[in-house]
Amino acid sequence: MKKIMLSWLALSATVVSFSASAQFAKPEDAIKYRKAAFTVTGAHFGRMGAMAQGRVPFDSKIATENAEIVATMAKLPWAAFGEGTDTGDTRAKSEIWSQNAKFKENSEKFQAESLKLVAAARGGREDAFKSAFNATAGTCKTCHDDFRGK
Amino acid sequence: MKKIMLSWLALSATVVSFSASAQFAKPEDAIKYRKAAFTVTGAHFGRMGAMAQGRVPFDSKIATENAEIVATMAKLPWAAFGEGTDTGDTRAKSEIWSQNAKFKENSEKFQAESLKLVAAARGGREDAFKSAFNATAGTCKTCHDDFRGK
Repeated sequence: MKKIMLSWLALSATVVSFSASAQFAKPEDAIKYRKAAFTVTGAHFGRMGAMAQGRVPFDSKIATENAEIVATMAKLPWAAFGEGTDTGDTRAKSEIWSQNAKFKENSEKFQAESLKLVAAARGGREDAFKSAFNATAGTCKTCHDDFRGK
Repeated sequence: MKKIMLSWLALSATVVSFSASAQFAKPEDAIKYRKAAFTVTGAHFGRMGAMAQGRVPFDSKIATENAEIVATMAKLPWAAFGEGTDTGDTRAKSEIWSQNAKFKENSEKFQAESLKLVAAARGGREDAFKSAFNATAGTCKTCHDDFRGK
């Protein structure tokens, strides 16, 4: 009986660990990964921000390169918000899991806007680029306000 | 004279700071960025490794998704190895700057092999995928051996 119970516990632990972090061996790997994805996203988003705010001249080619990287990165972090990744070296708020549908909706809006931003950057019209940049930035802010702690 | 000297110092500092980290405000931002890019790269490369080593079944679609992310990420970290980013929270060896042509060559080999890996993953032949995976992994190892400290 004791042996069966131990086997069951071991199996449960495996299942929990799997659903906890999907493709990550440990929750801390998932946290490190998603933070890294946001760091890369932020760097390239910031370069477009400098253009959108007129601090550097708008350049369609450079804006497109950065927008394409952001659009690729925008797909990545969400799989790393599995169960068990709510504690540790993270500012993730518990609302990510308690209001998961809203979190998912936000992440999808960001991905959709980042694709529009690629198109606007490629189009070469500064006003359209600024407008698309601001729409994308809005999705970042909404999600940070609701789901990222201090 | 003192005023001219101060202006010159301020200008020099600006120039150094600019060449130091190109598109990064501070050297530590560049270091954080390149480490983040490698973290994301490693996660997706690792998922292909599990297939290449037979720990999970080869799946062309999943391999292609991961290979495409790696090929995108492979372009990113190099701009963040500017002057002034050799110290701090980094394992970067001084050889990156003293043997910069070799470092650059390694980084270009990695980018080239990662593109071949996308093609092999998409092609759907497991043996070709494994071979391309190993060739890409070889470029990682060479560079880590020569340019990454403990």
